[in-house]
Amino acid sequence: MSIASAEFEPSGLITLTTDFGTRDPFVGVMKGRVLGRHPQARIVDLTHEIEAHWPAEAGFWLARSFRYFPQGTIHVAVVDPGVGSARAIAAAEGEGHLFLAPDNGLLAPVVEALRLAAVTRRVSEDALRRIGVREVSATFHGRDIFAPLAAELAAGRLAPHEIGAPVSDLVPGWLEAPTVRTGQVTGSVVTIDHFGNLITNVEATHLRELHEVVVRVGGRDLPLRRTYTDVRPGEYLALINSFGVLEIARAERSAAEGLGLARGAPVAVFSKRA
Amino acid sequence: MSIASAEFEPSGLITLTTDFGTRDPFVGVMKGRVLGRHPQARIVDLTHEIEAHWPAEAGFWLARSFRYFPQGTIHVAVVDPGVGSARAIAAAEGEGHLFLAPDNGLLAPVVEALRLAAVTRRVSEDALRRIGVREVSATFHGRDIFAPLAAELAAGRLAPHEIGAPVSDLVPGWLEAPTVRTGQVTGSVVTIDHFGNLITNVEATHLRELHEVVVRVGGRDLPLRRTYTDVRPGEYLALINSFGVLEIARAERSAAEGLGLARGAPVAVFSKRA
Amino acid sequence: MSIASAEFEPSGLITLTTDFGTRDPFVGVMKGRVLGRHPQARIVDLTHEIEAHWPAEAGFWLARSFRYFPQGTIHVAVVDPGVGSARAIAAAEGEGHLFLAPDNGLLAPVVEALRLAAVTRRVSEDALRRIGVREVSATFHGRDIFAPLAAELAAGRLAPHEIGAPVSDLVPGWLEAPTVRTGQVTGSVVTIDHFGNLITNVEATHLRELHEVVVRVGGRDLPLRRTYTDVRPGEYLALINSFGVLEIARAERSAAEGLGLARGAPVAVFSKRA
Repeated sequence: MSIASAEFEPSGLITLTTDFGTRDPFVGVMKGRVLGRHPQARIVDLTHEIEAHWPAEAGFWLARSFRYFPQGTIHVAVVDPGVGSARAIAAAEGEGHLFLAPDNGLLAPVVEALRLAAVTRRVSEDALRRIGVREVSATFHGRDIFAPLAAELAAGRLAPHEIGAPVSDLVPGWLEAPTVRTGQVTGSVVTIDHFGNLITNVEATHLRELHEVVVRVGGRDLPLRRTYTDVRPGEYLALINSFGVLEIARAERSAAEGLGLARGAPVAVFSKRA
Repeated sequence: MSIASAEFEPSGLITLTTDFGTRDPFVGVMKGRVLGRHPQARIVDLTHEIEAHWPAEAGFWLARSFRYFPQGTIHVAVVDPGVGSARAIAAAEGEGHLFLAPDNGLLAPVVEALRLAAVTRRVSEDALRRIGVREVSATFHGRDIFAPLAAELAAGRLAPHEIGAPVSDLVPGWLEAPTVRTGQVTGSVVTIDHFGNLITNVEATHLRELHEVVVRVGGRDLPLRRTYTDVRPGEYLALINSFGVLEIARAERSAAEGLGLARGAPVAVFSKRA
Repeated sequence: MSIASAEFEPSGLITLTTDFGTRDPFVGVMKGRVLGRHPQARIVDLTHEIEAHWPAEAGFWLARSFRYFPQGTIHVAVVDPGVGSARAIAAAEGEGHLFLAPDNGLLAPVVEALRLAAVTRRVSEDALRRIGVREVSATFHGRDIFAPLAAELAAGRLAPHEIGAPVSDLVPGWLEAPTVRTGQVTGSVVTIDHFGNLITNVEATHLRELHEVVVRVGGRDLPLRRTYTDVRPGEYLALINSFGVLEIARAERSAAEGLGLARGAPVAVFSKRA
């Protein structure tokens, strides 16, 4: 594990994922705090529109997005209904990436994606003291803890192994994994994207054993296609999307509106001939 | 044409225009891909809220915005209902700017704005091979093709003339040009801005021959004024806006809500005395 | 006052606060203009979703946010219902920060926060001529005046004292200060954040004299707590938020929706035993 830590070379790149929205100056203020400590940091917004107080969605997207960033990136995710309570701050490291989030299950999908490569820690009081984090508000740890922590790590003035001792008991994730039985996979809609596509937690690998796949959702049986233009505008389809998971779409329309489905809706996948 | 190509000096600046919205990590992931290949790139969001699947709006804004960026800027626009089909990727170059978009008519207004200065190309398989673009998803070319392409061009490792051979048959635009007859111009509302102002495709130059202009829209005849404060709060007006096109506004209110008009609504302009 | 000016050392950092929204390319175009003049500028969005035509909200947030940015930051705020009229452009300087905004009361809360440290000016014709600002539209001063001005100041090619002579008569603010009487403070809701929390203009310091505080809002009497997790999900509470003002919240829910309250709603705070 110490080897993994030694390998982390900060690139100066920081991503932010929150449920803060963009109406208030919360995200801007976090960036001000980062740039005050590390003026060379480059900050990329992953999204600030995670469903309020729902860390599972942040973890889902982060686990499927981080590999598109260069190694040495620090990913900060703050979806934090427990802010101000005694909940800890979690860190995960692996494949040259570093993740910081409240210890509320948010990082579970990331740790799952990293598998054996993951080293997990809790941020120690000592680490915070070391970087001079003192006055901490009860309601805005993004600004008061996460921003300075990310800045110091990105600047290379704090090493990942100085965050805290490795632990193996981070709070588990909120989402049930899909059920895989011979001939059938059952999962659920995790999020709905900007186009109204229903994104599920069924992975491409779950479908490996199936033949002539049928996707049952909202009372309909849909074919599995390669891309949106494989059906006519207005028709429904299922596909493995560009993040490697099963997606329910409607060509040039919103599948969510058309099917009247929301997050949590069940999705079953089976072989036609099973 | 080769002279124009020779003149393009990348500034490292890239603009992004999409219909991806900001709820999902799609835009962030594109930026990760750019910064992985060219860490010094500076990326500016033009907008990610283009009406879904409507490339015409992206082209309209891009044509009216690009000159406010320094020469050497690469403008990437991804509004792409045909993603995954056989549609090509188009490039246009002129006045020291470079544009990349699906070949679906999006770039037509840009090419029109550049006029004789425009060199248009289609991205060749060879160019993609050269920059190592291999694994391409069927549904997210923004991440898998546009981002690496823009990064390599911004880094100066790929020259515009290496994108592909010049062509003159890019897919034409979606919007009809305004009709100009003696004494009357007829156009339409192209988009509605954040303030509820109706932005039309009638250009200032279209009105050059008219005297004491009257703007007829939504059953009302409006005067042409210089700015919003030339009428009282709540009153309607027409003006030539800061992008050089006719705009229907309501002082300190939303003209779109007040008039009950949407994109596509007809607008007629004529001389009072004609 | 000249000493304060001499002390301003631009950090290259510029924040933007507007009511432009993110649907149109207005903000992107402002950034293009800044980067064309000063390619090394780093630009942070504070928010672009200020309530349209309501400068008071921009000033409120700016006054409570600027100290989280490093000294040498230039803060540009454009909420400008009077654009194109004869209204001036105001500048304020203090504590190593520089602020630019229309002279419409927007900067009043900032000047109040800076107190004796504030030097205020109006942008002179001479300063604009000096930096080559000529063609100015009647409706988009953000792009045509504020962006070039901020760029030249950030680049150190224009010094704050060259903006214009110090003045002491900027347009006053729009918001009434809270009324403080023995045993009672009366204020109002200034804005509602992304989570539906009601943010008031009652400062922590206003409550110093009170004991066993009760907050009366929307017909309810609420206790003052430290953080959201001090009550059960769904329960209401009042707290001093991370920006030092009184906030009405509902744990893991929207207080604004639950109470049916909007901006402007009155809030009274008193001692239980008074």
